[in-house]
Formats: sequence, structure tokens, C-alpha cells
Amino acid sequence: VNATRRSGAVSSQPDVILVDGRAERSVSVLDRGLHFGDGVFETIACRFGRPRFLSLHMERLALGCARLGIIAGTLEDVRDEVSQLARESADHAILKILLTRGTALVRGYGATGQEKATRVTLRYAWPHEDPAWSQEGVRVRTAALRLGENPALAGIKHCNRLEQILARAESTDPDIPEALMFSHSGKLISGTMSNVFLVEEAQLRTPRLDVGGVSGVMRRVVLREAGRAGVDARECDLHADDLHRASEVFLTNARIGIWPVRSVDERALGAPGPITRHLQRLVAPLLEEPAHE
Amino acid sequence: VNATRRSGAVSSQPDVILVDGRAERSVSVLDRGLHFGDGVFETIACRFGRPRFLSLHMERLALGCARLGIIAGTLEDVRDEVSQLARESADHAILKILLTRGTALVRGYGATGQEKATRVTLRYAWPHEDPAWSQEGVRVRTAALRLGENPALAGIKHCNRLEQILARAESTDPDIPEALMFSHSGKLISGTMSNVFLVEEAQLRTPRLDVGGVSGVMRRVVLREAGRAGVDARECDLHADDLHRASEVFLTNARIGIWPVRSVDERALGAPGPITRHLQRLVAPLLEEPAHE
Repeated sequence: VNATRRSGAVSSQPDVILVDGRAERSVSVLDRGLHFGDGVFETIACRFGRPRFLSLHMERLALGCARLGIIAGTLEDVRDEVSQLARESADHAILKILLTRGTALVRGYGATGQEKATRVTLRYAWPHEDPAWSQEGVRVRTAALRLGENPALAGIKHCNRLEQILARAESTDPDIPEALMFSHSGKLISGTMSNVFLVEEAQLRTPRLDVGGVSGVMRRVVLREAGRAGVDARECDLHADDLHRASEVFLTNARIGIWPVRSVDERALGAPGPITRHLQRLVAPLLEEPAHE
Repeated sequence: VNATRRSGAVSSQPDVILVDGRAERSVSVLDRGLHFGDGVFETIACRFGRPRFLSLHMERLALGCARLGIIAGTLEDVRDEVSQLARESADHAILKILLTRGTALVRGYGATGQEKATRVTLRYAWPHEDPAWSQEGVRVRTAALRLGENPALAGIKHCNRLEQILARAESTDPDIPEALMFSHSGKLISGTMSNVFLVEEAQLRTPRLDVGGVSGVMRRVVLREAGRAGVDARECDLHADDLHRASEVFLTNARIGIWPVRSVDERALGAPGPITRHLQRLVAPLLEEPAHE
């Protein structure tokens, strides 16, 4: 426990702000990100001076740009910038990379195809988190808000996030750090900022992300590591009854790694189950040693 | 036909840019509008120095802020600013008002409730448009992309517009200025930037906007004027077969007023029908005389 953690005073403001690689703190009022959420982003955990799972983040960023038709040029600049900022960070850090389609050349939704992407890079201190959340698990609730289903946007980490914002706003209980979200037709999709896994009869399952949700970097890592370790893991359609039947539930994202879930709404799941523990042990070295990715 | 129209060189860039009422051209890189599309907007037609249907725009803006929990303070400032900019415009103009939740105070989707809204105001020249579009009608297509269904976001003019952007990007044919959009479950919702009305057996129908779409200002005006004139007009669930059966189809938005539709994909509808013409005559005075609103 270092001084920052003891004081609990980790800044919630970035210590580095770059726009297109330059030290600027503002973007054009005409940016299409501002008007339409017309962009994609990545949130990258940096540990011991290295960005974790950088290749997977870059892959998703490129896919998001391709899907939305955002012309980001070479992403090598992004990779270099991320690596350098991670190296220069005192300790652990969070990097957020935002790529919008750029400044609007015309009024309205239609883009000309000539827009030049805007890149915003933010570096934040690693946030303090109660260590019990990853060791003993978290309480989660199910969000009342249901996600719209749209295959065209499913999987990518785009900037249309009003659904997640409204779902988070349903509760301000600091002891319930995440909410599970169902789609309009009743499919379990994800948390507001995490992916979700269920264990049913020793099978590991996570929602297929064909109508919504973000294809999380840690979700990919968990599926890969589970497969390598011989755990029966699959993506499928899941609904409320699957959640109710699950013997274990856990959440993943690139920063938190794996959070066991110890209760969903009023239903207690108890201590982290054996498959959750097994996967936590499998991914733990990857979380602290980026070289192993 | 004035000089600008002859040259076809109406600027696509705003001639006035204000941020929170001040002449600035940029916003903070931490603005939640930029990161999440966390905001609402209005596009207001100004004719002869007056903003058209201002009360209806202000009402929708206030509703959007309330639904999203954006604390915009009094909207009197917005009303005053809009009126003044309309008065100062040389001729006709388009005003865009964007209200975001403001600069992020913390990282992530969750807002603290202490954010202060950012207001961006843009004034554009009135765009040139082929007069045949309102007189003879437009060709429209149906978009391949289907809208996600979400009652929480339906009706308001929020800034999560990737669906509309992708739908517009499906075609760049300048002779097809609009695309009709269906929802994920097959409901007809609207155009990408307009509302849609159908005439079936002398009944005027427009999609109910309970799962998607924007509650358009001109849509409200048309429903109101139709009701006053004794036209049987109703909001209901509409699907592809209703569109196929319709004898008349027209589009509305605050700028264009009413555009008759002369073809949908390969199906020709011919010259504007009698109910479309009737409604165009009813709303015409309102479009040029804001005092009558």
C-alpha cells in the first residue's frame, strides 16, 4: 500500500493530455465525436511501464475504425505513443485512446470520406480499488435499462455510450460497482464496463456478442486461456434463466482482470467458485507481465 | 435565385461558433459529448430573422436534458441566444444547438451529477436545395442497417448517431437524399434525418416513436395541422407491408418542411398525392411566418 492508496486521493483527472500527439487540451467544436459519438476508443492498462495486451487493443481499434469507416491512417503512431507514455509513467497507469472521424467538413450525419481522424490520448493514475473486489468478489445488480440490438455496432468499442451511462445512473451505491445488462429481446449481453462469464455444470459460458456488447480484450484472453487449460468454454446466447442457474459468475475487463461476482441483485453466490479461481490463477501472470501476452 | 444559389457555393462551415455563449472554437478534450455522445441537440430553421417553431424545439431540448439527466440550468439563455443569432443573420439560416453533459469530472461512463453542461451554438447558411424536391418529391431508399430498439432513448434528439451515420454511408447517390430505416424487429421508424408519414386508404399514419426515432418538430406540426383540418391522422406501429401498400409517402423535418416521396427503392409512387399536397398547403404559411406558430 503506497502513499497514494493510503490517502485515497488518486486524481480522477489525466496527467497527460495529447491531441494528435501534441500537448493540447481541446478539440474543434466541429469534431464529429462531439456531435454524434462518431468514434472508437480503447482503455489500456499499463503495468510496470508496459501497456498490457497492446496487440489485442490495437487489433480491436483497427477493427472498429474499419467497421465505422474511420480513416485513422497507420496505427503505428498510436502504438508508439502508447508504449512511450506507459514507459514514462511513474508506476501503473491507465491510457485512454479516443479516435473520432475528425472535424466535420459538412453539416449533418453524412461524412464526406475526406475527414481526418482526431486522436485524443489521456493518461490517468491507476485507480484505487478495494482488493476484496478481486479476491472475494463484487456485488452486482441487473440494470433496468435494456440495450438496443444492433449487429452493425456489436463488438466494437464505439463512442455511442448513452445506454451505459443511463444504466450506471440507475444506482449510485458505491458497494455495487457494476450492473449486468440484458438486450431489448432479453439476451444477457455484458456489464456496463465489463464482460460477463457464467459457469453452469462446469461449463464456462459468455454471451455471444452478435447484437450488442463490446468484444473485451480480457474476455478474449480468458477464452483463450480457458481453451488452453482444457476448460469447456463457449460463446452462446444466454438469458435471465442462465444467470439464475449459474453456480459461478465473474466479470472481466482490461483493467480489473477478473472480478468474481458474489451476488446478483438479492441472490448470493458466495465465495468465488473453483473455475473462477482457476482462471484467476491462469491469467494472473499475464496481468503483471505484459511480455507474456 | 440569388448569387449564392447560382454559384452553388453555400459554405458548409458555420459563420458563427459559440461555446457557452462566448466566441470560442474548441471544447475540452474531456467533454463527455466527445467521449460518449453524451448530449442532445436541436437544428433550428431561421427564416427572415426568426427561429421557426422555437417553442417546440425548446420543449424537446428540455425533455432530452431531463431524460438524460443533463443539468442545463435555465434554457432561457439558449432561447435568447437563438433569437439573437436569427435576428442577426443576413437572410435565412440554420442554427444548431448542442448541449452535452459537460467536462468529465471522473474517468468512465458514470457521471457525478456535478458536471456543468457545455453549450455549442453553430450558425450555418441556409443550404441550397433543388426546389423539385419539395414540389415534385424525392427518391428514397430503405437502409440496410436496422435501428436498435431502446425506449429509454426513443423520441429525444440525443447525440448517439452512429446508426444514422452508417445508414447514410450505405449510398452516396446525390439524387437519393434520404433513407428509410426499420428497427431490429422490423418496425418502420423514420428516415436518417426526417420523420416519415404514409397515407393508406385516406388515413395519415406515422410511426409511433416508443422504441426509436426522434420526435420531430415538423412531425408534431403536421400531426397538429392534420388534426385541425379534420384529416384522420394517427401514430401507430408500421411495418414494411404498410410502406408497400401506401398510396402516398412523405418526409418531414424542421428545415425541409414536407418532402413528398416519389419513389421508394424501385417502387414509383408518382406525383405527390392529394393528402400530401393538402398538408403542404396547410403548413406552408407556418414555414415562412414564424409568428403563426
